[in-house]
Amino acid sequence: MRSPDELRALVEGWLAELELSPELGGLEEPVRYALEGGGKRIRPVLCLATAQAAGGDPEAALPAAAAIELVHSFSLVHDDLPALDDDQERRGRPTAHVRFGEAHAILAGDALLTEAFALALRYPTTEIARELAFATSGMIAGQYLDVDGGRPDRAALNRLKTGRLFEASVGCGLWSVGVPVDEQEPWRAFGSDFGFLFQAVDDLLDDDGLVRELGRDGARALAAETEASARERLRAIDAETSALDQLVDELVARV
Amino acid sequence: MRSPDELRALVEGWLAELELSPELGGLEEPVRYALEGGGKRIRPVLCLATAQAAGGDPEAALPAAAAIELVHSFSLVHDDLPALDDDQERRGRPTAHVRFGEAHAILAGDALLTEAFALALRYPTTEIARELAFATSGMIAGQYLDVDGGRPDRAALNRLKTGRLFEASVGCGLWSVGVPVDEQEPWRAFGSDFGFLFQAVDDLLDDDGLVRELGRDGARALAAETEASARERLRAIDAETSALDQLVDELVARV
Repeated sequence: MRSPDELRALVEGWLAELELSPELGGLEEPVRYALEGGGKRIRPVLCLATAQAAGGDPEAALPAAAAIELVHSFSLVHDDLPALDDDQERRGRPTAHVRFGEAHAILAGDALLTEAFALALRYPTTEIARELAFATSGMIAGQYLDVDGGRPDRAALNRLKTGRLFEASVGCGLWSVGVPVDEQEPWRAFGSDFGFLFQAVDDLLDDDGLVRELGRDGARALAAETEASARERLRAIDAETSALDQLVDELVARV
Repeated sequence: MRSPDELRALVEGWLAELELSPELGGLEEPVRYALEGGGKRIRPVLCLATAQAAGGDPEAALPAAAAIELVHSFSLVHDDLPALDDDQERRGRPTAHVRFGEAHAILAGDALLTEAFALALRYPTTEIARELAFATSGMIAGQYLDVDGGRPDRAALNRLKTGRLFEASVGCGLWSVGVPVDEQEPWRAFGSDFGFLFQAVDDLLDDDGLVRELGRDGARALAAETEASARERLRAIDAETSALDQLVDELVARV
């Protein structure tokens, strides 16, 4: 069984050598810049760890895992734009629109999303690409709620904006190693808890979102409850899920 | 055999009743606004007419045809943005960002692209979605060349920016009625000519692009040559291609 760190190295290596559509030309630079931003690769690692725990070869999940990371990168590039969150920096570097200009950032985001589908379509069947489309629709809808200026239901927003892509990470891991749909539910329930835990930890680190809604203690209690639920879901699955447990460890170690 | 107008009515009806992902919520309004802009639906009609000429039921091509129209709409919404072409009006109405603001226009474009893939993935196999991804990558790369500020090769730019989606319209029409890959080449050659003819006519109407490069007479001569080639390609195909011929008639009647 490979550890999360070993799976992360696998993802990093694969992304570094990823061949993009050759016609992208000069657009390849902002696309790679966005993709190589030093993120934790938590979604693709979750995807590979799920494939491994389900008894498959994690390498079979690499195109799907990369597709998910590309969708995540697309969303960051567009969310950072002046018209949306207007962020100048991300992970200590200028955001894509600051570095390459707004036009190229918009097009690079579009290209990341399209390349993500091309990756998901390397599989012989449609399940992984469908999972990706469903997650991406939800993510965009969540971002819409976030910038809409109204007072959205925070839980509904999180479920869409971050939750969907975490659930798809688990779902794509399962599809990539052929887990039939009627055996997926317990894994997906774990993915849903994992996504919610990620959000709670993120809000605790940034002092916003759930912390503003529930206070620090309330947010902490909810995170602890979600962690317990996630671990319980793993125990209920008859499989070697240690790498998934370690991913939960990594999440909670952040706060 | 249905005429282009009958096929157009079929597309319009289908698009008007198209169910989008329910979670899009308030984002559905700009998405539909972009989609219902009164375009000529030339790409989806080309897709249906191809499916029909290849001996299939054009209705089988409806989700693919709609997917192509959504990709086209996505590209218009993003290309019109202030950072790109900064267009205020399209077909006599305010552009999406003027009407709904830049943030919502960016997200609506993202949603149109994602919904397009969801439509292409309604088919049981991956060919149509792959065709769409290939076309969309090329289109984005073409738009990059167009805004890059350099002096791009106009022919290469057109082949990507407009050509790819016309070729995909033909390709998706063929896949949707099960034409095997080794019988597709003559149809695709027609699609390529058709796309180039569309561009030449468009440039003659707008007095730019090829007209600037070759002069009006040069552009006219090239359009006539391309029209002859497109018609010759149809004659070489052993099928009832009258609706495709009528689509060529419609194109050339514009100038």
